[in-house]
Amino acid sequence: MPADPISSEVGARPGEVSIEMPAGFDAGVYFIGRIRTPWLGRADCPKNGGESDTVCTVELDPRYAAGLKDVETCSHLILLYWMDRAMRNLVLQRPRHYGDVRGTFALRSPVRPNPIALSVVELVAVEGAALRVRGVDCFDGTPLLDLKPYFVSVDSKPAATVGWREGR
Amino acid sequence: MPADPISSEVGARPGEVSIEMPAGFDAGVYFIGRIRTPWLGRADCPKNGGESDTVCTVELDPRYAAGLKDVETCSHLILLYWMDRAMRNLVLQRPRHYGDVRGTFALRSPVRPNPIALSVVELVAVEGAALRVRGVDCFDGTPLLDLKPYFVSVDSKPAATVGWREGR
Repeated sequence: MPADPISSEVGARPGEVSIEMPAGFDAGVYFIGRIRTPWLGRADCPKNGGESDTVCTVELDPRYAAGLKDVETCSHLILLYWMDRAMRNLVLQRPRHYGDVRGTFALRSPVRPNPIALSVVELVAVEGAALRVRGVDCFDGTPLLDLKPYFVSVDSKPAATVGWREGR
Repeated sequence: MPADPISSEVGARPGEVSIEMPAGFDAGVYFIGRIRTPWLGRADCPKNGGESDTVCTVELDPRYAAGLKDVETCSHLILLYWMDRAMRNLVLQRPRHYGDVRGTFALRSPVRPNPIALSVVELVAVEGAALRVRGVDCFDGTPLLDLKPYFVSVDSKPAATVGWREGR
């Protein structure tokens, strides 16, 4: 794996707590493509997919292109991608735009033991091994891990609440 | 990584297409816990989280326990877990319960280049480093990769459709 050129971009702030990570990994992932967006860094990148209507491009490695059969029938997809610029060893963190220290697993921050991000995107078009989608929130070139169909029956929970964010 | 004892359990069927995978992995994941369920194999395991009301236990490695701060305020969580018994090299597959050959990325099958599964679960209780949740669909002992809060604003898309499954 290549060295991370800007790992300090998402780093520790006062009140944050880091831990010792395990000595080795338990499994390996393949980068199956790249997400192309207009955003090069945190200053201009939306904080979540709901903050942008920009249509971005998911470039799937042609090796996997046959796996896109029937994807064009999906209105929405779940994208899993690898936040390769983030630290992995923080269990308590203070997101820049909130201010309070929260547990990593109560946040959608890219900083987590496995920096796998999830966005539900609207599928605009399938063009060969590329997908045009709306609702992405990542830096240009972010590695893609997976694409999944979004099923309302199991994925949509309109009554869900996040107490710590209520009333903000 | 240990050898997979039953990788043939989820394997190739007629009409399925496998590909040559890349020579190496691009990044590594940590197993941060295990999911405890009553299901030991496919015969009794629900096909998705909506098929079971059973309360299961997510056992987080105590190393990461501080990361659970504020999680108790969430009504629903997104679980990411590693489907460690599945093949990774199929791009076209024929799910047992559908019959037609579909693209891997149009399916929620555990068989995919990165066998990362996603379930939206209802949080029942937090007990130390363990979570009691409803809505899990995996084998007992499945490795956990991540826990995330479910935000209706970005995660709930009640109008989403999957064309290939409509009218079934």
